[in-house]
Amino acid sequence: MLAHFPGRGELQPEGILRLEAESVVLLDQRELPDRVTYLTCRSAAEVAEAIRTLAVRGAPAIGIAAAYGYALAAEQGENLDEAAATLLASRPTAVNLAWAIREMRETDGGLAERARALHREEVERCRRMADHAAALLTPGTRALTHCNTGGLATGGIGTALGALRAAWTQGLLEHVFVDETRPLLQGSRLTAWELERAGIPHTVIADSAAGAMMARGEVSAVLTGADRIAGNGDTANKIGTYALAVLAAHHGLPFYVVAPTSTVDLATPTGAEIPIEERDAAELTGRFPARNPAFDVTPGGLVTAVVTELGVHQPPYELSLASVATAEARA
Amino acid sequence: MLAHFPGRGELQPEGILRLEAESVVLLDQRELPDRVTYLTCRSAAEVAEAIRTLAVRGAPAIGIAAAYGYALAAEQGENLDEAAATLLASRPTAVNLAWAIREMRETDGGLAERARALHREEVERCRRMADHAAALLTPGTRALTHCNTGGLATGGIGTALGALRAAWTQGLLEHVFVDETRPLLQGSRLTAWELERAGIPHTVIADSAAGAMMARGEVSAVLTGADRIAGNGDTANKIGTYALAVLAAHHGLPFYVVAPTSTVDLATPTGAEIPIEERDAAELTGRFPARNPAFDVTPGGLVTAVVTELGVHQPPYELSLASVATAEARA
Repeated sequence: MLAHFPGRGELQPEGILRLEAESVVLLDQRELPDRVTYLTCRSAAEVAEAIRTLAVRGAPAIGIAAAYGYALAAEQGENLDEAAATLLASRPTAVNLAWAIREMRETDGGLAERARALHREEVERCRRMADHAAALLTPGTRALTHCNTGGLATGGIGTALGALRAAWTQGLLEHVFVDETRPLLQGSRLTAWELERAGIPHTVIADSAAGAMMARGEVSAVLTGADRIAGNGDTANKIGTYALAVLAAHHGLPFYVVAPTSTVDLATPTGAEIPIEERDAAELTGRFPARNPAFDVTPGGLVTAVVTELGVHQPPYELSLASVATAEARA
Repeated sequence: MLAHFPGRGELQPEGILRLEAESVVLLDQRELPDRVTYLTCRSAAEVAEAIRTLAVRGAPAIGIAAAYGYALAAEQGENLDEAAATLLASRPTAVNLAWAIREMRETDGGLAERARALHREEVERCRRMADHAAALLTPGTRALTHCNTGGLATGGIGTALGALRAAWTQGLLEHVFVDETRPLLQGSRLTAWELERAGIPHTVIADSAAGAMMARGEVSAVLTGADRIAGNGDTANKIGTYALAVLAAHHGLPFYVVAPTSTVDLATPTGAEIPIEERDAAELTGRFPARNPAFDVTPGGLVTAVVTELGVHQPPYELSLASVATAEARA
């Protein structure tokens, strides 16, 4: 299995997550960067548990994992209504999960093939997003990113991190500042690991140092992913994203959100309607009272552009994101 | 020694740091909140090492520790020029260290008594600052604070945290949000511990959640300490302070800096001249490249008021901080 993970180079989609005959196999992200290990889930409930405990995370990746979990449930003869409900309940904020389950529910037969196709489509969407987003970047870009939006988060080359990989290949990228991303350190554990493998120069910083780095002129653009994008461009993403958007605006830096159309939820008109998952306070401190919202909402007004596989969406998002519905209707 | 630390109640100044016959005894802040232990330093070099390794930290507290270290050096017959140089080199950003050593160097005889007097004066300054700053707060204040600015940081009741204690006593304070303060977690380890002892309602949050808490309307004022304040009000403080100031301005919240006049450095005209300590990257990650600036500089333009023991200084700081020089000339 380690053949999927040479010391360097591209993560292969099937090395991140895949459906086998009687299981869904997931790269266990909780063990990175110390160990590359795989988790074998033998039921939809086990896949849901893997999502809930963040063995697999990242909005697109949990969509694919859920699709594989649903296909596995069908294969195993589980009650599919229950399987869908269990998977849907595993994380509340990312809309890709609901989207993937809906896609699976609408499929007549061939669920395993449909889930694998969803994964292939995600890989292809990543490629397109990366190209569209890289086209926005200027030579010498010193990017700041938050959380992990790479192969691990998508099963493809990534959203924001995929864009940075494309920019690197095109000679546009000079450096990536990686927010460590408390409390679970997806930046310093996962993004730094992916950038090291890709040979892209990077520096981990404390989340609280992002503003100071901008003030010093060390950052030229901020790129993040998204867990859900409302119709007006309000974007739910990893806690800390909102502060980065305010800081980027204060410093006159572009703030780009890179996410597939499966993350855009036109049924949610504004960020106020996005449920925000509160995680266990013990992820921060087991000793004192704490609050641990996993996500925050960045108003569309602070987002320079949303980049999907369809292209670059600019404000006003009520108009520019409407193409997502058109594309979905066509599909 | 534990008599200084009942489970609840005020930390006593001599329970935080004190000069004994042949040593300086420091509450070892690296072990909190798990264990209350003391470090015994038997030379100026050992005090400098305690400052460098953050056994004692907080701008006012390291000033007192340095004064005690200098007095100890005199007591032990050490070379005082060397002792002063060693102590001065232990941390570069806080100006209180230089101030305390200068005060000691200007003392004729009675160095132990002078050091103890400096500590008593710091305790008194904390009381005055706290009263001046609390007078700025309105009933129902929901404060956000960063790092630790309490008894541990000052040897008295604290600067920003002292103000919050005074506000609590006066019935003005409803709640304190405590930034955990990466990488060394002075917020979730030290500030939460002090607030728990004081019986003040508090909630630890990830540094990156501060903006989202402001956006939700949960915060009504931000209070921090300072490691050095330039003549124009530019304030060096724990990394992350600058981002909080930008976020406070974005949300129309007051941003107060509470610090003794020993932190004001009129010889430094602007923040650009303040040296910023870069600490070991391994405090963040030992695995990937990292940058770890310990402090950042908040422009005076983002500071609603600076509160010292002399009172409330408002912009323009070039004028309002001049009273510090007048007070020093009088002293």
